Amino acid sequence: MGNKALDKKTLSDALARRLPAYYRHVCIMLAEGKQTVTSGELAKRIGNTSAQVRQDFFTCGGVENYHPDTLKEWLSGLLGIKKEHHMVVIGAGNLGRAIISFKDFNSDGFFIDAVFDNNLMFDGMQICGIPILNVSSLEDYLEANKVDIVVITTPASVAEEILEKAIKGGVKGIWNFAPVDLRSSDKIEVQNVHLSDSLLTLSFRINEKEFWKNEI
Amino acid sequence: MGNKALDKKTLSDALARRLPAYYRHVCIMLAEGKQTVTSGELAKRIGNTSAQVRQDFFTCGGVENYHPDTLKEWLSGLLGIKKEHHMVVIGAGNLGRAIISFKDFNSDGFFIDAVFDNNLMFDGMQICGIPILNVSSLEDYLEANKVDIVVITTPASVAEEILEKAIKGGVKGIWNFAPVDLRSSDKIEVQNVHLSDSLLTLSFRINEKEFWKNEI
Repeated sequence: MGNKALDKKTLSDALARRLPAYYRHVCIMLAEGKQTVTSGELAKRIGNTSAQVRQDFFTCGGVENYHPDTLKEWLSGLLGIKKEHHMVVIGAGNLGRAIISFKDFNSDGFFIDAVFDNNLMFDGMQICGIPILNVSSLEDYLEANKVDIVVITTPASVAEEILEKAIKGGVKGIWNFAPVDLRSSDKIEVQNVHLSDSLLTLSFRINEKEFWKNEI
Repeated sequence: MGNKALDKKTLSDALARRLPAYYRHVCIMLAEGKQTVTSGELAKRIGNTSAQVRQDFFTCGGVENYHPDTLKEWLSGLLGIKKEHHMVVIGAGNLGRAIISFKDFNSDGFFIDAVFDNNLMFDGMQICGIPILNVSSLEDYLEANKVDIVVITTPASVAEEILEKAIKGGVKGIWNFAPVDLRSSDKIEVQNVHLSDSLLTLSFRINEKEFWKNEI
């Protein structure tokens, strides 16, 4: 991990979710030309407490100092950003296309090498220069190429089957947008993204605000 | 809020994020024909502890019993799912299209009424039966129509401007996919979605696993 001081085998999901936000905000502060970062400032941007920031950094092995360059370097190491990650996207629909067209990934070492779809009409076509292949060739592709992460944007019904093929093909992680919870295992890590959860959280906050407005 | 027992003005972000997951899993358990739900079972599905589930439900005012129907009804009330929410999407690109084509929203009372884009080529066209309007007409539209939630799928540079127009137009919430953190205020609630955060969390988990594999 490039960070030998990590003293826990598995950090909590909550902490694992906060790390990318720390990284994102340190990058913003660097771009703003900040020379130093305090735990309080970082906490404020993230909506957290400074004690939590310091505890999180301590749990992850500690960082030498709070210069933004040092912090960025250290967080990059934790998040595996310095490594090359080769990805394929399953599903050439709107969501698959949206993910492919995010340009930010490349600069962090995440490369999308191919897109797979079951629609024969797409065969031989490209999205942003990335070839669309038929999903029937996925197993052969995984056998012949190094793929670290498979992005699933298919309907729920086929997500489990893709997961099995990915495990067989030696893939390390699944970034799953299908509306079903796939499970991480010894063989593969999974991040399930439920887009509508954040809409419901928003609806909850609106609802909560209206409730208190009516009470006062 | 339909839940007078709520004893805190603002629940934590962590809890506000867990509520949609509880709702999602209760719906799945109902579909599976479960007659009862235990806090342990729900905790296991969510990757939480049963003490946390009970504490969360208590913090939200408590629920009469753990029958899935009762739980679904109660969580729906908290999340504002029983109300109608009228939404517009800003940006008719891939992500905007992906959001429009999610069919799940409608059944939860979230209706997308219009899409706005600055590309004149789209004027008068439709996506899934929803009209695409020019973004220059957004202010007039918000004046003339009841819009509860604005979904931003534009580049970061225009997100703040859309937020201002939404506040002026009496919109209650922003579901923001632009890569910039917009702020909630007294006037409007914001949920910022950073898609690449979950990719970095996945990368962290893969990295963490490889580190320990090399250590053993």
